[in-house]
Amino acid sequence: MPTPKDIILNRQKKLTKALNQANLDSLVLNPSPSLIYFTGLHFHLSERPVVAIFTPEHPPVLVIPELESAKAENLSYDLNPFTYPEDPDKWAAAFKSGAKAAGLSGSDVGVEDRQLRLLEFRLLQTALPESHFVNAEDTVATLRMYKDESEIDAMQKAVDVAQKAMEATLPKVKIGMTEKEVAAELVMNIFRQGSGAELPFQPIVSTGPNGANPHASPSDRKLANGDLLVIDWGASVDGYFSDLTRTFGVGKVNPEQEKIHKIVQEANAAGRAIAKPGITCGEVDKAARDVIEKAGYGEYFISRTGHGLGLEVHEEPYMRTDNPMPLEPGMTFTIEPGIYIPNQDGVRIEDDVLVTETGLRSFSDMNRKLRIIG
Amino acid sequence: MPTPKDIILNRQKKLTKALNQANLDSLVLNPSPSLIYFTGLHFHLSERPVVAIFTPEHPPVLVIPELESAKAENLSYDLNPFTYPEDPDKWAAAFKSGAKAAGLSGSDVGVEDRQLRLLEFRLLQTALPESHFVNAEDTVATLRMYKDESEIDAMQKAVDVAQKAMEATLPKVKIGMTEKEVAAELVMNIFRQGSGAELPFQPIVSTGPNGANPHASPSDRKLANGDLLVIDWGASVDGYFSDLTRTFGVGKVNPEQEKIHKIVQEANAAGRAIAKPGITCGEVDKAARDVIEKAGYGEYFISRTGHGLGLEVHEEPYMRTDNPMPLEPGMTFTIEPGIYIPNQDGVRIEDDVLVTETGLRSFSDMNRKLRIIG
Repeated sequence: MPTPKDIILNRQKKLTKALNQANLDSLVLNPSPSLIYFTGLHFHLSERPVVAIFTPEHPPVLVIPELESAKAENLSYDLNPFTYPEDPDKWAAAFKSGAKAAGLSGSDVGVEDRQLRLLEFRLLQTALPESHFVNAEDTVATLRMYKDESEIDAMQKAVDVAQKAMEATLPKVKIGMTEKEVAAELVMNIFRQGSGAELPFQPIVSTGPNGANPHASPSDRKLANGDLLVIDWGASVDGYFSDLTRTFGVGKVNPEQEKIHKIVQEANAAGRAIAKPGITCGEVDKAARDVIEKAGYGEYFISRTGHGLGLEVHEEPYMRTDNPMPLEPGMTFTIEPGIYIPNQDGVRIEDDVLVTETGLRSFSDMNRKLRIIG
Repeated sequence: MPTPKDIILNRQKKLTKALNQANLDSLVLNPSPSLIYFTGLHFHLSERPVVAIFTPEHPPVLVIPELESAKAENLSYDLNPFTYPEDPDKWAAAFKSGAKAAGLSGSDVGVEDRQLRLLEFRLLQTALPESHFVNAEDTVATLRMYKDESEIDAMQKAVDVAQKAMEATLPKVKIGMTEKEVAAELVMNIFRQGSGAELPFQPIVSTGPNGANPHASPSDRKLANGDLLVIDWGASVDGYFSDLTRTFGVGKVNPEQEKIHKIVQEANAAGRAIAKPGITCGEVDKAARDVIEKAGYGEYFISRTGHGLGLEVHEEPYMRTDNPMPLEPGMTFTIEPGIYIPNQDGVRIEDDVLVTETGLRSFSDMNRKLRIIG
């Protein structure tokens, strides 16, 4: 097994190559999953700006507050830290010194549009008035998309923790409990099973008509006989996330509820069946979508079929109709078709999968049938 | 008690007034604590951009992905939603329509530099090529700084949950446990005591020399006899955070450790003693800092004395030497002096406090003396 130092240096080396290919002279990251990926360093996204500057010619430069300076010490690889004091008027100088040490001038600077805030952006613009700031998310995604052995291991563990937590929770779910109460019980069990402290997201527990909102927050609505219950939850292990959904029946469900659950289950199976190296993301989406459309519920499948998963809960590759990217070994993503009927019901079944050399492996194997609880 | 609708409408009304005073025509927020504050709506910060546009003349405009549209329905106040489909090429049009409906043109648009990402910023720039985007954090902070009764109630509960969680954890902390193990036990107890799913931050559990890094992440270092143990932790209730620190002795501590703990305890007490309406944030910082400086450890107090606390774990007002802002009733913040001796030890004692009409109330009352555990 490579050491943590080997892993980081290898990633920085690949980054240099990828920047060259993208005609970028540098990459500037603020606290983000990519910063963790390329440095192993964790920073809070706070009112004190932090950036790392990667260039082919120099060791990474880190601009940080003085009180975080210990994090830049005793690292296993070269890093050039520039610190600033508490007074915000002095931050620009540290950014200027850092940019100079990295050899930046009036060039194209790669950034992550989804991560970089105006806080850091304005300081970078002041330090580098001649530079253009180019969205380099694709370049970074190209590296982060291919998971290595240690990442795959962490993701499998994160799925195992989540599945065990759900199995421990289900026997306690009863008619009359609120969505919030079910969510609280589930969160407890996620941590009991050994999840890291940062969850990928607050579990979604939605009942009856609330299930028609794919991103509902748990409410005070009580589980009632005849509800469908959608639970979307995940755990983290070593910073890597899982993200699963199962839909349950509460007490006595009706034939249409059974029917739409079965359609979604078949759509999920179709997505998992087709995905393998060479198949495109769009084809995975189409395979799942076709099942739902042919069953006459196409208008109620309002989301893409899945998203990449790893250090972020949403990352490349996206299983979107119009995405021509071919799958390759090492890619990890969700397959989560759903049917969302406004003011009535929702169903979603979500698995986390890995593209292998020959096909697909599902990290998750929890029962996908309509289980009746309560 | 005012209804949730009253609270939201009142906040929007105050915002209109504050924007006028700041000569701003509008405020644009992306998913952030301020968005929750002014709309009651929760969105994930994801690869799909979301913005709300507030102007004096129109109801708030919300630009959101189609699959989030349910969140904008059945609200108790007026809201004008614009949705976009999954295809990123179609997002700019939704931003343009939203900006038009809000009546924006070539004017000064207020934004939050610490929240707005390049993702939303570039879409806003395309929709409003003539506009200037001005940091309006101070304007927003001026409103959010003064907590109402429901907010104060939530903060007290968040502190109570955190304190109970710590008291449940301490009997289980033993020599030989790793920092990570202590953190995991504490997180479990935070949820057992009823914290909301989103913690303010992953607890800091740092032992021995690790304590000298104020923002250390829990490591595999084991608690050893003679360590100081710094634990910085919090909980959430209804979205409001607590943020506390206590420093413990493990087994037999030495006289200098006892001494620096006592100095920090006195500095914490001095900060709490002076804070009241009319005293400035800088004076609070100075009161705590003077104690540590007079004891000869000034160079080891490398942070400000505290930060505002509420929907965010760091917000206005900041207890910083150079901050001339006078305290006023309703302000809530931390008082957290510390001594950080590199490669040796750290001590921090942190309380959460509320400025009242006549003085100060501490939400937290947990024993601040050097307790010996293990």
